[in-house]
Amino acid sequence: MSGVVHRTPLLTSTTLDARCGARVCLKAEPFQRGGSFKFRGAYNRLSLLDAGERARGVVAYSSGNHGGAVALAASLLGIHAVVVVPATGSPAKLAAIEGYGAEIRRYDPATERREEVAVELAQERSLTMIRPFDDYDIMAGQGTLGVELAEQAGDLGLVLVPIGGGGLAAGVSTAVKALLPGAAVIGVEPAGADDTRRSLRAGRRVALDTVDTIADGLRASQPGERTFEVNRRLLDDVVTVDDAAIVEAMRFCFTRLKVVVEPSGAVPLAALLTGAVRADGRPTAVVLSGGNVDPADFAALLARG
Amino acid sequence: MSGVVHRTPLLTSTTLDARCGARVCLKAEPFQRGGSFKFRGAYNRLSLLDAGERARGVVAYSSGNHGGAVALAASLLGIHAVVVVPATGSPAKLAAIEGYGAEIRRYDPATERREEVAVELAQERSLTMIRPFDDYDIMAGQGTLGVELAEQAGDLGLVLVPIGGGGLAAGVSTAVKALLPGAAVIGVEPAGADDTRRSLRAGRRVALDTVDTIADGLRASQPGERTFEVNRRLLDDVVTVDDAAIVEAMRFCFTRLKVVVEPSGAVPLAALLTGAVRADGRPTAVVLSGGNVDPADFAALLARG
Repeated sequence: MSGVVHRTPLLTSTTLDARCGARVCLKAEPFQRGGSFKFRGAYNRLSLLDAGERARGVVAYSSGNHGGAVALAASLLGIHAVVVVPATGSPAKLAAIEGYGAEIRRYDPATERREEVAVELAQERSLTMIRPFDDYDIMAGQGTLGVELAEQAGDLGLVLVPIGGGGLAAGVSTAVKALLPGAAVIGVEPAGADDTRRSLRAGRRVALDTVDTIADGLRASQPGERTFEVNRRLLDDVVTVDDAAIVEAMRFCFTRLKVVVEPSGAVPLAALLTGAVRADGRPTAVVLSGGNVDPADFAALLARG
Repeated sequence: MSGVVHRTPLLTSTTLDARCGARVCLKAEPFQRGGSFKFRGAYNRLSLLDAGERARGVVAYSSGNHGGAVALAASLLGIHAVVVVPATGSPAKLAAIEGYGAEIRRYDPATERREEVAVELAQERSLTMIRPFDDYDIMAGQGTLGVELAEQAGDLGLVLVPIGGGGLAAGVSTAVKALLPGAAVIGVEPAGADDTRRSLRAGRRVALDTVDTIADGLRASQPGERTFEVNRRLLDDVVTVDDAAIVEAMRFCFTRLKVVVEPSGAVPLAALLTGAVRADGRPTAVVLSGGNVDPADFAALLARG
């Protein structure tokens, strides 16, 4: 993956350090190719396909960062990609996926289920399904972010990662616990999509009936099987933040760091700014996981905050 | 200055390269301390004061990046700073200047002239006046950006810098012409504040009667004496861009680069995107000079664009 995946910078802010009483660095995945960490997993997964699988192509279901990441990785590797997206999805996100050269398959969310549409397509056309998180190659790809953190930040006592399906958290915690065994890894979820926190408490994978958060990349209603097995062993804790705290973290990134961070990407920083997680003097790394947000949506969120 | 001034990163975008038909890098001064290149000049100027001048303090007139940069540099060097600002100025910018610990002196733009207020204060209290651009130590400080460009980008055939009073253009062109003699340096002005372009054509410093642009950091109505003498010798050309082009460059930075760039900071990129300057295959560096813009103002600009 080296030379293809960007080694994104660590950002710092003296204001943030003073506010948290600790040295804090922010891993800036908005600067990753495709605008989020998702490219790491997608590129790793696709680069490990065999010649026959490459020739037949891949399919993914996602209207967001996973769809864009699979489309971009496929285009770099010369693989045909089909991305299943809701007919009601954002035109800007669709345009990004099409811009990477992927074939778009629209489905009607009222009458179809995206996973079934994708499975059917995979069978009909012998495409390889690229799942968004519950896949060891995806998890390993996301884990390269944790390897970079250990190399770039050196000594760390605390690492904060967002949790949707849990692929990033599983990859990063695996890398961090191996390379920096003294560091705590804490996952952060939106309060309205806290499936992993509930699942950890229950000791088994719990599915939420409804999900309600502005963090559109973290709306998974149930942890993955594989991701949950890793996260239950390696995460030190999972905490939640509400939508207002997410908006304030986005505003902090805009005004202080000059970085565009999407709602899902600001969730771990929100936990630090609200005090849901306290650094307690530990050198801390916070993952800013992505920056794909339409300027008008961004403005509307900040105006209501 | 090393260890105090941030060595800001060069950003790249495959989309931008494809659109311009050249390798383009963007020098990201929104990540500079204080959010703009102005900290380079202010810190250099203040660090060269003698012990008596330091003890007595400094005064600057600016409601924008120069005021913030002087306040921040003074606070780091333990120097008392007074910043003269319009009573009608943006509360957010005032708060930033006060946040760095400077003393604020408000003036009424309807009845007072800010330069006169500052000169009077300087005389009364034996403060050293820190002018925004027409000062060799300020120009030399801004020139460190050009030194970094030469070190980071290596071979360059074209460098684009914004022009307000001309301090950054003078410093950068001095550094670039010394270190990369083959590179053209082109200044870019807002069409509604094209005092340097008109002055170069006239062969003498021309003062504009009115200035009209969203690029609030480039509203100088006349080039500086010292900056003009440098820029007339070293700049290969000066071109202009209109406000709509500036907004489109800000949008490109937001959606593609995930960097917050203020109107003044996006002016050189606007020249490249509109074709006012053509790369013609030359490796090109574009200065993104600052990122201090209120989220609501940013949203309003993009919404009207």
